[in-house]
Amino acid sequence: MSAGGAPDVGGLLEGYGAGDLAVATVASHTAIQILLGAKREGLRTIAIAPPGRGWFYSRMWFVDDVLEMDLRELPAAAEELRSRRAVIVPHGSYVEYVGWRAAMEIRVPTFGNRYLLAWEADQRRKMSLMEEAGLRVPRTYSSPEEVDGPVIVKLYGAKGGRGYFFARDPEELRDRLRGVEGPYIIQEYVVGVPAYHHFFYSPLRGRLELFGFDVRYESNVDGRTFGLADPTFVVVGNLPLVLRESLLPSVLRDGESFASAVQERTGRPPVGPFSLESIVRDTLEVVYFEFSGRIVAGTSVYMVHGSPYSLMYFREPVDMGRRIAMEIREAAESGRLSEVVT
Amino acid sequence: MSAGGAPDVGGLLEGYGAGDLAVATVASHTAIQILLGAKREGLRTIAIAPPGRGWFYSRMWFVDDVLEMDLRELPAAAEELRSRRAVIVPHGSYVEYVGWRAAMEIRVPTFGNRYLLAWEADQRRKMSLMEEAGLRVPRTYSSPEEVDGPVIVKLYGAKGGRGYFFARDPEELRDRLRGVEGPYIIQEYVVGVPAYHHFFYSPLRGRLELFGFDVRYESNVDGRTFGLADPTFVVVGNLPLVLRESLLPSVLRDGESFASAVQERTGRPPVGPFSLESIVRDTLEVVYFEFSGRIVAGTSVYMVHGSPYSLMYFREPVDMGRRIAMEIREAAESGRLSEVVT
Amino acid sequence: MSAGGAPDVGGLLEGYGAGDLAVATVASHTAIQILLGAKREGLRTIAIAPPGRGWFYSRMWFVDDVLEMDLRELPAAAEELRSRRAVIVPHGSYVEYVGWRAAMEIRVPTFGNRYLLAWEADQRRKMSLMEEAGLRVPRTYSSPEEVDGPVIVKLYGAKGGRGYFFARDPEELRDRLRGVEGPYIIQEYVVGVPAYHHFFYSPLRGRLELFGFDVRYESNVDGRTFGLADPTFVVVGNLPLVLRESLLPSVLRDGESFASAVQERTGRPPVGPFSLESIVRDTLEVVYFEFSGRIVAGTSVYMVHGSPYSLMYFREPVDMGRRIAMEIREAAESGRLSEVVT
Repeated sequence: MSAGGAPDVGGLLEGYGAGDLAVATVASHTAIQILLGAKREGLRTIAIAPPGRGWFYSRMWFVDDVLEMDLRELPAAAEELRSRRAVIVPHGSYVEYVGWRAAMEIRVPTFGNRYLLAWEADQRRKMSLMEEAGLRVPRTYSSPEEVDGPVIVKLYGAKGGRGYFFARDPEELRDRLRGVEGPYIIQEYVVGVPAYHHFFYSPLRGRLELFGFDVRYESNVDGRTFGLADPTFVVVGNLPLVLRESLLPSVLRDGESFASAVQERTGRPPVGPFSLESIVRDTLEVVYFEFSGRIVAGTSVYMVHGSPYSLMYFREPVDMGRRIAMEIREAAESGRLSEVVT
Repeated sequence: MSAGGAPDVGGLLEGYGAGDLAVATVASHTAIQILLGAKREGLRTIAIAPPGRGWFYSRMWFVDDVLEMDLRELPAAAEELRSRRAVIVPHGSYVEYVGWRAAMEIRVPTFGNRYLLAWEADQRRKMSLMEEAGLRVPRTYSSPEEVDGPVIVKLYGAKGGRGYFFARDPEELRDRLRGVEGPYIIQEYVVGVPAYHHFFYSPLRGRLELFGFDVRYESNVDGRTFGLADPTFVVVGNLPLVLRESLLPSVLRDGESFASAVQERTGRPPVGPFSLESIVRDTLEVVYFEFSGRIVAGTSVYMVHGSPYSLMYFREPVDMGRRIAMEIREAAESGRLSEVVT
Repeated sequence: MSAGGAPDVGGLLEGYGAGDLAVATVASHTAIQILLGAKREGLRTIAIAPPGRGWFYSRMWFVDDVLEMDLRELPAAAEELRSRRAVIVPHGSYVEYVGWRAAMEIRVPTFGNRYLLAWEADQRRKMSLMEEAGLRVPRTYSSPEEVDGPVIVKLYGAKGGRGYFFARDPEELRDRLRGVEGPYIIQEYVVGVPAYHHFFYSPLRGRLELFGFDVRYESNVDGRTFGLADPTFVVVGNLPLVLRESLLPSVLRDGESFASAVQERTGRPPVGPFSLESIVRDTLEVVYFEFSGRIVAGTSVYMVHGSPYSLMYFREPVDMGRRIAMEIREAAESGRLSEVVT
């Protein structure tokens, strides 16, 4: 085991040559674009499906194999996956189903930087990594007593928008905190519009690519509640967003600062897709309240057709699933797989 | 005449061979994608335009002929259309202009299942078909007296979002029902975000395809009214939506259940495009409040570039107009036209 | 100098032949699509960047040269730009950085109709041009005393949504007008949903093309303010919109009427991209409250993949950047450059 609990990558990659690799991912979240992208790049594809969901993925021409299993059993299938020369591409549901500790320790080469998982699981460490990167972040309150305005409360391990709530003032906060169990973080509520910024860090090309943007479509905050329900932030889908071009250079700089902070604190760059989640104020200040150290569902707004921003780097547009597969294929071809997996 | 008022399809198809078919549609709604898709599949194209609207369609390179006429006269043009070996592709405005009875009886081969038209014209039968399919639907109140919470009222034959209104409570409902004429249905108002689900049932391939999603852009409910106006639901346009991938298998199952219920009740599958219209709660429950048994305007979010979801079935993305034309062309080529038209 | 302050175009074009033209634009706003479109049409590309922003554009493969300079110095670089046979493509940030008078007088061939700039700088002349075109416009109040309902106030030279505010009634208007300096216009607030309509006028083909639609994503009006902040209209981004097809013919007619009015009042058609900005009421009436006589950021919703509506005119979809470059290239090839630049 190397530092941080992840297994030694050299050992995991034994027998992984230049050809005949497979991409494996959990059959949910962004699996369609991940598996389709892999197939388009000539890789084999494995969908790892929770019971009862395999049928959906087995109908797709670009899915070679469907392994249906209780995902808590996935670590036991590591040898089987390695024998198929599979690289796991993690996403939000992967971590949710498998658990972050198992995801950290699983003995299968995993695309990206696993060491980030431990940071993501802890809201305070998460915010501290963004602060170290010099990003503008909302104020974090160390206790409910400090609060003097509207806030957002986030429970640790909140996923897909569940486990967030809004409180207008200290009174409402006190009420709503009753009955909350487990650790949470209280953040200043920033007024503005949400914008989610997607990046791809390529170790092979030594660069950070600006990939695109989306807005989450959330129930009930985007519903027509007419005051009938409290705002909730459960993610139902995503909407494509074109961000004001004048913001792009500074957003890319922010992404680069974040990548450097990750390198410094985990010993590795973020590798592959990550996202910085923000509110844009009407002063056009971008305030980051969250990051995701792996592919997020919002990249699916570019599924199949590809992100127009990817044209800044390539001659044809690619989606995030394909971009991941390109990096894996190119790494394998140049004997550099150990730089893109952990 | 066969059961239900539609003419015998065998007779209508006399003289329709494998080649030289035309697609005819009313010049509005989704005519651009229908006619462009037909041309891309090698079919001739006829735009049937209400007076004063033909000029717009006659400028498009993929429109072969424009027939400008009062659409109430369309039944009289049936022989002319049959002599051109035209298949009518119906859409929401077609039914609106021509009337559902005329659409039911017109002596021109009509793509899809005409028998659904009668069900669509009656809000209670509509809801009952969805209930029979086992879909989760909002509560329907049998009288205003029963109402105990917020509701949506839908007039029969409501189109494009006109003829709907919201009432917060029994008092507001009573006020707003004054002056309403004609039959209506009162439904529980479901809190959440709207999502419109699009499908294509292919009799040739014997399968239901998940086609995509959109959100309607409605005036005034999506306006910036600042409390200056009541919410109204007139459809001004559509916005593309990427639905959370974890919902896709159950949404497709819901579509399959609906297709089976249609088969059972009308003796035919839905054939071609249909849509199920829902509210997604913050529990991620999908509640269906409406269906459309033909192409809806929301599919135009995929116009020209094609739906990314269509890649699950085909090697290049197709839009709904093209998907319809593919089915017609393939049916003609394999002598199975009578399975895709009524 | 010709009438209106713009230099004589014949003189500017000396030495501009059929080949080896460059497109130059200010590195912001819609520069990515403008420069990529130019490269795709075989033109050279020059990004004129404000200090500190050149690095972002210099990474793009389709940008041949980056000139970093204080943009107030741009007029002094006219000869240099002409020696590179550059055509400036203006956009909102160009006018903002360079100033409308300098943009009017700069001795570099400028794509489009410069004479419109003077009209755009004055909110009253702007509205009058739309009225002359016969477009439905909101009521303009000649003084705050006249106001009897909700209004929008627009300062002259408002850009990117800054310099607009909403007032619910005469009292709020009076309050908010305190401290406002410089000229402004008070308009009736129209209830409905915003829709931005994009057009391209081609002098070479002698036609107006309907290009597409978007909705602005504005902070705070589209934010989740929960009543915590006043609505503000600063543009953070754009969202793609599919407009109801039944509105398209009249929207195109409105565009044609506007183009005729521009021709009449400035002696030239609008040339190239322009936009009409509207609110659509729930009666489906389209009320125009603004125009832009050049490319707007909203066209970027079609960046790279192209507008589906462009298929009405061409065999493959094009984005607005590419459409501009097509017109420049074709004009150069047919010796008609003087018809597309001023």
